[in-house]
Amino acid sequence: MGLYKLPVRYEHDPRMNPQKILVLGAGRSSSVLIDFLLDHASDNQWLVTVGDMDLSLARDRVNGHPHGVALAFDITHPEQKREVAHFDLVISMLPASFHLIVAELCAAAGINMLTASYVSDEIKALSETFEKNGAGLIMEMGLDPGIDHMSAMKVLDRIKGAGAELRTFETFTGGLLAPSNDDNPWKYKFTWNPRNVVLAGQGYVKFLQEGKYKYIPYQKLFKRTEVIHIPEHGYFEGYANRDSLKYLDAYKLRGIQTLYRGTLRRTGFCRAWDIFVQLGATDDTFQMQNVSEMTHRQFINSFLSYNPNDSVELKLAHYMNLDMESEEMYKLKWLGMFEEELVGLDKGSPAQVLEHILKKKWTIQPDDKDMIVMWHKFEYVEDGKLKKLQSYMAVEGEDAIHTAMAKTVGLPLAVTAKLILQGKLVVSGVQIPTERSVYEPVLAELENHGINFTELETN
Amino acid sequence: MGLYKLPVRYEHDPRMNPQKILVLGAGRSSSVLIDFLLDHASDNQWLVTVGDMDLSLARDRVNGHPHGVALAFDITHPEQKREVAHFDLVISMLPASFHLIVAELCAAAGINMLTASYVSDEIKALSETFEKNGAGLIMEMGLDPGIDHMSAMKVLDRIKGAGAELRTFETFTGGLLAPSNDDNPWKYKFTWNPRNVVLAGQGYVKFLQEGKYKYIPYQKLFKRTEVIHIPEHGYFEGYANRDSLKYLDAYKLRGIQTLYRGTLRRTGFCRAWDIFVQLGATDDTFQMQNVSEMTHRQFINSFLSYNPNDSVELKLAHYMNLDMESEEMYKLKWLGMFEEELVGLDKGSPAQVLEHILKKKWTIQPDDKDMIVMWHKFEYVEDGKLKKLQSYMAVEGEDAIHTAMAKTVGLPLAVTAKLILQGKLVVSGVQIPTERSVYEPVLAELENHGINFTELETN
Repeated sequence: MGLYKLPVRYEHDPRMNPQKILVLGAGRSSSVLIDFLLDHASDNQWLVTVGDMDLSLARDRVNGHPHGVALAFDITHPEQKREVAHFDLVISMLPASFHLIVAELCAAAGINMLTASYVSDEIKALSETFEKNGAGLIMEMGLDPGIDHMSAMKVLDRIKGAGAELRTFETFTGGLLAPSNDDNPWKYKFTWNPRNVVLAGQGYVKFLQEGKYKYIPYQKLFKRTEVIHIPEHGYFEGYANRDSLKYLDAYKLRGIQTLYRGTLRRTGFCRAWDIFVQLGATDDTFQMQNVSEMTHRQFINSFLSYNPNDSVELKLAHYMNLDMESEEMYKLKWLGMFEEELVGLDKGSPAQVLEHILKKKWTIQPDDKDMIVMWHKFEYVEDGKLKKLQSYMAVEGEDAIHTAMAKTVGLPLAVTAKLILQGKLVVSGVQIPTERSVYEPVLAELENHGINFTELETN
Repeated sequence: MGLYKLPVRYEHDPRMNPQKILVLGAGRSSSVLIDFLLDHASDNQWLVTVGDMDLSLARDRVNGHPHGVALAFDITHPEQKREVAHFDLVISMLPASFHLIVAELCAAAGINMLTASYVSDEIKALSETFEKNGAGLIMEMGLDPGIDHMSAMKVLDRIKGAGAELRTFETFTGGLLAPSNDDNPWKYKFTWNPRNVVLAGQGYVKFLQEGKYKYIPYQKLFKRTEVIHIPEHGYFEGYANRDSLKYLDAYKLRGIQTLYRGTLRRTGFCRAWDIFVQLGATDDTFQMQNVSEMTHRQFINSFLSYNPNDSVELKLAHYMNLDMESEEMYKLKWLGMFEEELVGLDKGSPAQVLEHILKKKWTIQPDDKDMIVMWHKFEYVEDGKLKKLQSYMAVEGEDAIHTAMAKTVGLPLAVTAKLILQGKLVVSGVQIPTERSVYEPVLAELENHGINFTELETN
């Protein structure tokens, strides 16, 4: 088998014929996925190979487990590509741009594959090859996309199956800090790609409200928030995600009156974040001047008018129409935005500089716990009556490695892998988990691992 | 000469050996340029050929003049490309993307060339070829860029020549309606490419203020205006243009404290225009839904929250924090933005829909007169004293064809062509008119044709 050898006990025992799983990518978000596979490896006769460009990262994840193999792996390397054909199932946790290479190899070799990323047109085009070679690829099998598809479709199919007329579907997901973090006025740290958080919401937003198409530009997005109350978990605020209209077809919702997908933050976050948006501090289209000598305070000042008499704080408060003692100003102060502290970058766009400053306070610490919250709202007419149903889920992380994010992204992949390898789920072609045959067994397994949705009918 | 024949009188008289000028592009902005060339053709023994894809447009411009030839011309056609080599001077008024093709032909054949567009890196790279073949190309020889370069450099060179220390240079240009148009509360119509007006200001703005680099994002641009008073012409408002820092090198201004380039509008324009910006109505990145059935009112409503009780006007006023009776609301009403009138497009981005609605009121009518205003401000320290100097110019159009825009774009090209053909100006390589050898004779000629700058020292 070329670059890696089977562990010795397999080589010398011909009765041992394990199912071979390859996990590509050993970053933080793979932690819970790999732990699950290793925990279930002995019972299921699995051999779990973890490949990463960085061998030490792969070794950390495998941690000497008898059913695990750590491998230095580069998917762009021709010789290493050929290794893929030796496995029974491949799970790609690589950056999204690499999935196509892996998918082409799996399709050609007829190997089942899973990812948590959005399906692309190029990958969709491989569907026939997968099918012809007796295999399948499930994409969007993480949290969002992933658990959101499955938990929503479960209720949507039930409502439609009962002959009711669906009028409203709203869905929100948030990656947040657990409520125990009390000293952080933002109630937020980076639990996911920081760059994506800084750029979040750029581009256009489309949704459907009471039968009308609605659009929100970036400059109004963090002002057009909705207050969301989630039973047991309190109040949140939600802002709209890019193109909710895509889900008209993906979820078979043509004819629905209101369709809105959003992101959850703790209350007060969006008003403060909007200051960065309005300043232009999240712009990623140009390189700033003199970044190597720039302080936090100068960064903020570069977006404000020149005025020799007023402080940066006063200019900002005036520009943004804020009280100097406001919660928003305090949040910026807490981040150190007004300090004469060097940014610490040689160059960068405003977004890159802002990300670097935010990381100083928003990097998750070893004892920090994160939290994932998902909330769906359905309104439908049944027997002539308008009915309202909420369905929601919250998961807390254990520590800075076994985060709620890693759990909710990793467990759907892990339990789906288990169902496929045990022959309980047969996949053919390229798909996303919106079909009952997939979401039903996966959601049932997830319930055994602490990912539960609560339903509540309201008036 | 292939596709076009010399007028008969030239063919039969061997003493006639006219200088042959080719003007490519016969749109409105070529009108004054072509008139000038034809008016001076007899005295100078010029033959003026006007080429356009649309022969009737070329014929309109030539209007049967004995020294003019109208030609159906497509610069992308291989056979027609070869025609270019027969001319002594080529002026390209084509869309900017075609200049490179023309420049390559002129460089190879050693033909002098002029345009009013911004120089690109690809065209700059042709400089040696032009030089080697004994010819030159002057770009940015219109209004802005063009007259702005020349009139600014004239003063800047004088100040620096006197050994003074330059501290501030601000420059503003506006294409506006002449003050006689009283019924239009915007005091604005499209006198230039409407699409560029709708998209104006998108992207980032960089400038230098009192030694500090400053940045303004699109969402704040039309709020960060400056009030500009121009003697004899009254009050205007200015908003910043994209990257003023480019002019640090182009104008040799390294070490200056304040450098700001802007666009002029009549007072009140920017506050009202900002409503479209904040709504997202100038976004050009996505196609709207159901445009074919959309009314003006629905267009505005698509950017506002759903609310079954409030009118579109009330929702907008509330969203934008405006009084219902405000000047801004009146400006939108005057445009018909709240009418249930069909937009009249089959599809489009918000920017395309907005442009289409605006054209209904903002299209220049036969008896409308436009106006160009340019204003420079210089501050410098001479003999230990801070001195302030303004330099400004205003030109009114004659009618909807012979606009001030066509004059101020066309005359610099026309007089430069005259100077070159008369041997009074020698051009070598690719350049912009920032050198004294070019701007001095061109500005002197422009003064003879009504383009005059007034200087005023203030305290």
